[in-house]
Amino acid sequence: MEDEQFIRIKEEVLRRIRPPEDEVERVSALADSLITICEECAHELGLCVTCTLVGSVARGTWLKGDHDFDVFILFPPSTSWEELERLGLEIGRRAARKFASLYKGDAKVIERYADHPYIQLVFEDGEVDFVPAYRIDDASCILSAVDRTPHHTRYVLSHIAGREDEVRLLKQFFKAAGIYGSELKRRGYSGYLCELLVIHYGSFLECIRAMASWRRGTVIDIEGHSTKKHDEPLVVVDPVDPKRNVASALSLDNFARSIHRARAFLSSPSPSFFEIEEESLSIDPRRGTGLLALEFPRPELVDDVLYPQIYHAMESVASLLEREGFRVYSKRVGERDGYICMLFELEVWELPPIKKHMGPPVDLREHAERFLARYRDNPRACSEVYIENGRYCVDLRREHQRADALVAARLKECSLGKHLNEVLTGRAVVLFGEDVMRRGRVFRYA
Amino acid sequence: MEDEQFIRIKEEVLRRIRPPEDEVERVSALADSLITICEECAHELGLCVTCTLVGSVARGTWLKGDHDFDVFILFPPSTSWEELERLGLEIGRRAARKFASLYKGDAKVIERYADHPYIQLVFEDGEVDFVPAYRIDDASCILSAVDRTPHHTRYVLSHIAGREDEVRLLKQFFKAAGIYGSELKRRGYSGYLCELLVIHYGSFLECIRAMASWRRGTVIDIEGHSTKKHDEPLVVVDPVDPKRNVASALSLDNFARSIHRARAFLSSPSPSFFEIEEESLSIDPRRGTGLLALEFPRPELVDDVLYPQIYHAMESVASLLEREGFRVYSKRVGERDGYICMLFELEVWELPPIKKHMGPPVDLREHAERFLARYRDNPRACSEVYIENGRYCVDLRREHQRADALVAARLKECSLGKHLNEVLTGRAVVLFGEDVMRRGRVFRYA
Repeated sequence: MEDEQFIRIKEEVLRRIRPPEDEVERVSALADSLITICEECAHELGLCVTCTLVGSVARGTWLKGDHDFDVFILFPPSTSWEELERLGLEIGRRAARKFASLYKGDAKVIERYADHPYIQLVFEDGEVDFVPAYRIDDASCILSAVDRTPHHTRYVLSHIAGREDEVRLLKQFFKAAGIYGSELKRRGYSGYLCELLVIHYGSFLECIRAMASWRRGTVIDIEGHSTKKHDEPLVVVDPVDPKRNVASALSLDNFARSIHRARAFLSSPSPSFFEIEEESLSIDPRRGTGLLALEFPRPELVDDVLYPQIYHAMESVASLLEREGFRVYSKRVGERDGYICMLFELEVWELPPIKKHMGPPVDLREHAERFLARYRDNPRACSEVYIENGRYCVDLRREHQRADALVAARLKECSLGKHLNEVLTGRAVVLFGEDVMRRGRVFRYA
Repeated sequence: MEDEQFIRIKEEVLRRIRPPEDEVERVSALADSLITICEECAHELGLCVTCTLVGSVARGTWLKGDHDFDVFILFPPSTSWEELERLGLEIGRRAARKFASLYKGDAKVIERYADHPYIQLVFEDGEVDFVPAYRIDDASCILSAVDRTPHHTRYVLSHIAGREDEVRLLKQFFKAAGIYGSELKRRGYSGYLCELLVIHYGSFLECIRAMASWRRGTVIDIEGHSTKKHDEPLVVVDPVDPKRNVASALSLDNFARSIHRARAFLSSPSPSFFEIEEESLSIDPRRGTGLLALEFPRPELVDDVLYPQIYHAMESVASLLEREGFRVYSKRVGERDGYICMLFELEVWELPPIKKHMGPPVDLREHAERFLARYRDNPRACSEVYIENGRYCVDLRREHQRADALVAARLKECSLGKHLNEVLTGRAVVLFGEDVMRRGRVFRYA
C-alpha cells in the first residue's frame, strides 16, 4: 500500500471518528467532576475508598460521540462482599443524584444488577456506570469480575502514548465489519483488545498487516509471561494477568472475518472499510430455498444472558430439523421493536411421507428381535422390516412432511434455555415462505 | 419347535424337491455313460487321464429337475497349461459329440472360455460341462482354479452319508430366501457350503438353530486346521484347503438375511420358507419418493463379469447423486429380455437452484486467496463469498436442479466399468417418475 494513499484514508476516517477538541474538553471536565463528586460522597459516609475513571474515556481512545463513563469505587480487599455491594451502591446512588441535580438537562438514575451490581446514570451527554470493586494489587488475584479493569486502564495509559488514533481506527474497522464488542451476542473484539493489538503492533496498519497472515492459534504475549495453554482461535495474553486470554470471547467466524477484511483492505484500501452497513434478515426468494422463522417477544433480559440462550435454541431447532431430514442451509437471528426473529433457510421444505429408521445389526440377537417385534406389525411402519448393511431397517410414516409442521409440533422437545422456553413454546409464531420475507425485511441482523 | 410339526414340514418340502426314483436312475445312467464315453475318447487319443464326475449329481445332493453334470478331465501336474487346454478341450469336444450322436433328442455343443476353458453340452435332460483340470494330491497346492473341485466331491462323499436330504432342505431354504449361489451376482451360499454346514451341524434343523445365533465373524473349522485369519462375516474353513474360506463370497446382507430367516423359521415353522417368491422391481408410488431408472441393453458377458461392474456402476451413480445433494433412499437392479434396469429411489427429486460450495479455512492464506479470486466475480456464484465455521463458502448456481438431468448430463464422469461404459453412456435411457414404474414392474429383481 502507498503510504500517501493510506495517510489520506486515515485522515478522512479520523475526521469522522476522532472526538473534536470541544468534545474532549467537555468530556474531561465531566470526568473530573464525576470523580470529585463520587469521592465527596464516600467521604460524607466516612468511607476509605478510592474513585477512579476506567474505560475508553479514561484511556483517551473513545470514538467521537461515544463517551460513556465508568467510575469505579474501589474498596480494600478486607471488605466483605455484602458491605462492598451495600456501601458501593450507596456511594454510587448519592453521587449519581448529586451529579444529576447539578447537571443542566435530563438525567435519570437506574440500579442495575448483572453478575455485578452497579448504579447507572443516564444523561444527555452519555451514560455513567458507578461500579463498586475491590482494590487488588495483583490483577491475577482478583476477588470480583470487574477488579481487573483498573489494572487494564493503568496498563494501557502507560503504553499507549500517542497512539490513541490508531486504536480508534482499529475499533472503527471492526465496528464496520460487525465484529466490534466482546459481548456474548457479538463475540468480537473488545476495546481493551484493540488497545493491546495497537500497543503490540505499533500502529493500525501494522496490526492489519499482521492480521492478514494470522493463523488459527496465533498467540500474542506482550509481556512474555503466559502461564496457560488456550485453544481459542486467537490468544492475546492479558499483560496484567498471565493466565487470561483477552480474546477468549472471539468466535472462530469473527476471527476469520477480521483476517478476511484485513486482506481486503490491504489489497484495495478505501474509507469504505470504516463505514457501518446495516444488514437486514432478508433472503432473496430467487434462491428457491425454504424459509422458516420463529418470531417471539424478547424476554426482559440483558443481551449477555439472552443471546447465548438464543444461539443455543437455534442450534437445537436446527438439529431437530436435520435429525428429521431437513437440511439447514443457513440460520440467523434478528431483532426489532421488542421482538426476536430466528430465521432458518432450508434446502428442502417438504419430504416424502416415509423415512428410513435404522435398527440394530441382525446378528445382535436380543436387540434385533426386540426391533423386529416392535416394527413387524407397527401401524407407523409402511414397509416390511428389511436388511441394509447388516442392520435391520424399516420405513416409517413421517409424522410431519413439512418443516413448519415439524417445528410447530416438536418445538417443546428442543433445548430452548430457561428464559426462552416459555416465550418460544407459548408465544412464538412459526412463519414460512413469503410470510417470513414480509416480516424478515424489517428485522435487523443481530 | 415340535418335532412332529417339523417332520411334517420336512416331508412336505422333500416331496417337492427330492428327485424321484426314476430321475435318480436316469441321472445315474447318464452320468455313467458320460464318464465311459469321456474315458474312451481320451483312450483313442492315447492320453493318460482320469475322468471323474463332480458337483451335486456326483454328491447325490441335487434338487429335483436340477441335475447338471460336471465331468472333470484330470491331467497329471507335469502337463503344460497349453497342452491341458488343447488336449482337454479335444477330449471334451469328442466326448460331447459322441454323446450327442448317441442321445435320442436335441443336443448342442458349445465351447466356453471363462477364466477356465471348457466344453458345454446342452441337451434335453440338462447340461454337461467337460472341464480340463489337474489331478493334484494336496488341494492346498492347486495349479488351476478348478483343481480343488474333485477334492470337494471326495470330501463330501465320504462325510455326507445319508444326509443328502438335509442338504436339499438347506439349499431350498436359501433358494427361497434369494441367497443361494456364490456367483458374483448373488453373493450367497454355494452348494458346497450347504453340504459343509450339514456335515458340521449334522442336520438342516441343527444348522438353522446355530444360524439363528450366528455373529459376524463366526468361524466353522470342521477339520480344525485353519491357517489364516479372514474378515468376512462368516468363515467356513475349507476341509481340503486350510487357508481358504468357503464362505468368502457371502455378502454381509445375505449373511444377515440367513440369520433373519433362520430365526423366523424357528419361531413359526412353515413350508412357505421353502417357496420361491418372484420379486419385481416395483416401488409403491404412495411412498412419495423420486424414482430414477437407467435402462440399457445387457452386454454379452457372463454374470460373474457383468454383475460386479453393474454393482460398481450403481455405487458410482449413487455417489454422484449424493455428492450433488440428492439423498439415495434405496437402489436395486433388475433384468428382463436382454435389458438391465438400475433403479434409484430418491428422497427428493428436485433441489433449489443454489448449492453451498465450501472453500478452505480463511487463515490458510494462499488457498483462501485463490478461492476468493475465483469466486468473487464468478458468473456461477449467486452470493458473496461468506464465512462459515472459519472457512470460505459461496453459493453456486446448480447446473441441474433435477436428478434425471444431473444423471443424464454427468453419467460420463461416473466410474462405470470397462464393459458398461459404452452401453450406459451411449444407449441407456434415463427414466423417472411414472415411466419408471410402468417399466419397473416387468423387471425382475436381480
